[in-house]
Amino acid sequence: MIPSFSDIEIAHNKIKNQIHKTPILTSTIINEICGCVLYFKCENLQKTGSFKIRGATNSILNLSEEDRHRGVVAHSSGNHAQALAYAAKQNNVKAYIVMPNNAPKVKINAVKDYGAEIIFCEPNINAREEETNKIIEKYGSKIIHPFNYFDTIAGQGTCAKEVFEEFNDLDFLVTPIGGGGLMSGSLISRNTLNPKCKVFGVEPEEVDDAYRSLNSGRIEINLTTNTICDGLLTNLGELTFEIIKNNIDGILLVNDFEVRKAQTLIIQRMKIVVEPSSATVFAAVIKNKEIFKNKKVGLIITGGNIDINL
Amino acid sequence: MIPSFSDIEIAHNKIKNQIHKTPILTSTIINEICGCVLYFKCENLQKTGSFKIRGATNSILNLSEEDRHRGVVAHSSGNHAQALAYAAKQNNVKAYIVMPNNAPKVKINAVKDYGAEIIFCEPNINAREEETNKIIEKYGSKIIHPFNYFDTIAGQGTCAKEVFEEFNDLDFLVTPIGGGGLMSGSLISRNTLNPKCKVFGVEPEEVDDAYRSLNSGRIEINLTTNTICDGLLTNLGELTFEIIKNNIDGILLVNDFEVRKAQTLIIQRMKIVVEPSSATVFAAVIKNKEIFKNKKVGLIITGGNIDINL
Repeated sequence: MIPSFSDIEIAHNKIKNQIHKTPILTSTIINEICGCVLYFKCENLQKTGSFKIRGATNSILNLSEEDRHRGVVAHSSGNHAQALAYAAKQNNVKAYIVMPNNAPKVKINAVKDYGAEIIFCEPNINAREEETNKIIEKYGSKIIHPFNYFDTIAGQGTCAKEVFEEFNDLDFLVTPIGGGGLMSGSLISRNTLNPKCKVFGVEPEEVDDAYRSLNSGRIEINLTTNTICDGLLTNLGELTFEIIKNNIDGILLVNDFEVRKAQTLIIQRMKIVVEPSSATVFAAVIKNKEIFKNKKVGLIITGGNIDINL
Repeated sequence: MIPSFSDIEIAHNKIKNQIHKTPILTSTIINEICGCVLYFKCENLQKTGSFKIRGATNSILNLSEEDRHRGVVAHSSGNHAQALAYAAKQNNVKAYIVMPNNAPKVKINAVKDYGAEIIFCEPNINAREEETNKIIEKYGSKIIHPFNYFDTIAGQGTCAKEVFEEFNDLDFLVTPIGGGGLMSGSLISRNTLNPKCKVFGVEPEEVDDAYRSLNSGRIEINLTTNTICDGLLTNLGELTFEIIKNNIDGILLVNDFEVRKAQTLIIQRMKIVVEPSSATVFAAVIKNKEIFKNKKVGLIITGGNIDINL
């Protein structure tokens, strides 16, 4: 079932007290570089360092009483793992996170700090799913999907809702596409709050499954994972593909060189820490100046979970 | 002459449209680490990457018509240089910035980008002052002091004003002390908006001139500049010392090891780029947990102008 805008409103009321209303930042210098007016919605400054806390919190708050007692499970080494661990802890629900045994220590520690139980597995999809199924069999825990899930999409939609409520005259909203949860929620919020605003997705050139899926009309899978954008490696799900193919205005592609340049510019000029996946949207604007010329453009900066060397 | 709170209000109305109202961020994890509730006033996200734009813009906007035509001059390799260059450009005033010829390229480029004319000099105080005097003689330009100046102090006071207007129940406000301009303005705002709030300054252990000045009752100079806090190397001025000695509640000292640890924690957990001088305030809270236990504490994060290696 596809969430409606009123599902996003309900989600927003539920999660409001457990998330930050993140700031929307602007920069004169950055605008001069791009030739348009950019509004950076800073989900990197969100709790757990990414927008994923929105969908995770909504999913936790919608558990039945029985599910609450049995806990939740997810396999992820990324931002969803941290978000689910944190949201579960805030609401006294047990979280099991299946992580590959080669996951970066900083991510393992973050999930541990948030109080989740980590189950390590070999770093491949089969092992991940096997360990996840073991948890489900053993504890009856509910799996919380990072994107292809009603409550997740409704939660992610609250981010674009905040953008449109603060700036109702945007010409464009640009967000990265991984599994498509954030994009799906953004499209639903756009349709109600600012139907004239065009919504573009951005993908790394080598992980362009959503771009190819729109062209072929069916869910395409990624042939490589050769990109620094570690948050965008997944394919679309059936639910997110359905929403995206019927509503999106286009997908732009960027390469890793462009992403790194954009990421560096944001960090140096805007003084915020952004992960490569987030910098894709700014890279796409720099690359396609003619599309955005003199327009008002919202960018969702999805996360900031990287290691920084001082 | 010492600015009153109404001078700060007048300054705020003048500069409002040329600066950001910077966000005040919070973090559950950071609060757990400290055992108190911290409010980070993010002047690192301010235009030119520091609070200095407040005083610089106010100084520029208060120039007489004659002074506007003759331009402004400052000797600085730090945040004041960038701020004055930017504020001057925004208001069509010529800025001359005297910088040591060994200043980091990134800072030289930033000042250039903001359109100021740079005059290089040998890296010592005599050479700086000599070059500055040459500019004053040649063009009649007005020198804009980075802290010991009425308009600068009134401008810097707008930062704490914004903090107190958003949170009127703070128990403490903590800010770094370099030349004392920000501290002076903060104290004046505190006296009117929240007289019960205690205001603490923070200095690096090896550059503790303000701490010693309060003890001795006269302006002490720094014996070393041996610290990573490059924004806090200056001594107090007569005007700022006068305000600080009559109003401040105390000065805390931190060492560079503590500062680097605090800086790393802020960058990793809060996803914002902060310079060492800014991290001093957080380091002081971590070091003095018993003072701040369970209290509401505002921290002014003064700037974010560092090189980051990705």
